[in-house]
Amino acid sequence: MIGVLGGMGPLATVDFFGKVLVATSAGGDADHVPLLIQSDPRIPSRPAAILGDGRSPLPELMAGRDRLVAAGASALAMPCNTAHFWFRDLSAACPVPFISIVDACVAELAPMLNAGGSVGLIATRATLAGRIFDAPLMRAGYRLQVPNDESMDRLVLPGIELVKAGQTQQAGPLIEQAVRGLLQKGADALVLACTETPVALDAVQSPLRAKCVDSTAALARACVAWWRLHSQISCAT
Amino acid sequence: MIGVLGGMGPLATVDFFGKVLVATSAGGDADHVPLLIQSDPRIPSRPAAILGDGRSPLPELMAGRDRLVAAGASALAMPCNTAHFWFRDLSAACPVPFISIVDACVAELAPMLNAGGSVGLIATRATLAGRIFDAPLMRAGYRLQVPNDESMDRLVLPGIELVKAGQTQQAGPLIEQAVRGLLQKGADALVLACTETPVALDAVQSPLRAKCVDSTAALARACVAWWRLHSQISCAT
Repeated sequence: MIGVLGGMGPLATVDFFGKVLVATSAGGDADHVPLLIQSDPRIPSRPAAILGDGRSPLPELMAGRDRLVAAGASALAMPCNTAHFWFRDLSAACPVPFISIVDACVAELAPMLNAGGSVGLIATRATLAGRIFDAPLMRAGYRLQVPNDESMDRLVLPGIELVKAGQTQQAGPLIEQAVRGLLQKGADALVLACTETPVALDAVQSPLRAKCVDSTAALARACVAWWRLHSQISCAT
Repeated sequence: MIGVLGGMGPLATVDFFGKVLVATSAGGDADHVPLLIQSDPRIPSRPAAILGDGRSPLPELMAGRDRLVAAGASALAMPCNTAHFWFRDLSAACPVPFISIVDACVAELAPMLNAGGSVGLIATRATLAGRIFDAPLMRAGYRLQVPNDESMDRLVLPGIELVKAGQTQQAGPLIEQAVRGLLQKGADALVLACTETPVALDAVQSPLRAKCVDSTAALARACVAWWRLHSQISCAT
């Protein structure tokens, strides 16, 4: 059973749950990955802790992690890019593997660009400020491109708000323009590191989608792959 | 935190999760209901146990119930109509309230018809054979109408299969005809007691939807109502 530390926000968690089912492409229900999902919206705000003077959500994240492990999770995942600011603390001394959303994205980028290539990152202000993707991308040998302030204020953040308000058609061109801007600045591939942006591109059937890794879908595929390997090993021993 | 005993199948569980979010109509993430969702597709088949010689899933359901309670669930719900065949066993000696999908439907039917009125039931063969809704509807003073064999074989079951295959537009007219058949036989209101049938009616924007209670949505609303009452009581003491 994979434990899912979610609820930050709950829409991202339900999106992840659906993407695990899609990633399974199961012939019957029995092939699906067993999940134990905590969706707890009471965890203190991650953006407030990273960008302002909000208190750290780490104690609540730790408690959720420990609850899922105690209940039988044999691996963990957290479908929230911003919360990966605390990933090192959460995965340290964790008795089961913790599958990182960042590592899942790096793995999916590999066939999309060459060593030394440039990766664009579309994300919220807190995910960018937390430098959550920076070190792992650099360790993998990639350079990083992020939207400038003007693109954040005029395209990315309004696009995210429109998706949250259900206006996906209006959001599509804004996110598309932000993606195109990073491609023009030299990005070879992009990571869409917030739940809303893949929805916006899909709504307008953007051809730029092929250049982008959806971080939630990448984490879902990594979890399905982990489970398949793990349950095969269990069967063999 | 409400514990959700799911995964039977996982699509019904993700549907329930989404309907809890819709039922919340929350202004911000913090208003959402905290959930702990077990989605375990390894639980033995409920239809095989009710209709054939499959072994009972009760031990696995009990283990899931106890896992959720041990992990801190203060109430439980099970977004699977068929699994309510074992509801009496599951709710007996349960240390926390277990919110029944059947009771949630009966509560939503009350304003839709008069005492002594007739309720139509659209469900899978296993839910019908298990007589899961019969006693609670009769205790509430209602009569029960179910589709005849011909309607099951020609409309309900093919409609469910079409939704499972993603062909919701084609499923709509079949389910609509099954609903209309029960209304013509005297039903005053209906319960759609399987995940796929509300999807089919919504796909064709059927006006008959107003006569129907979606059991998954009814359970979601009952959970949100329970949580609001419970967390207010917690705040007050």
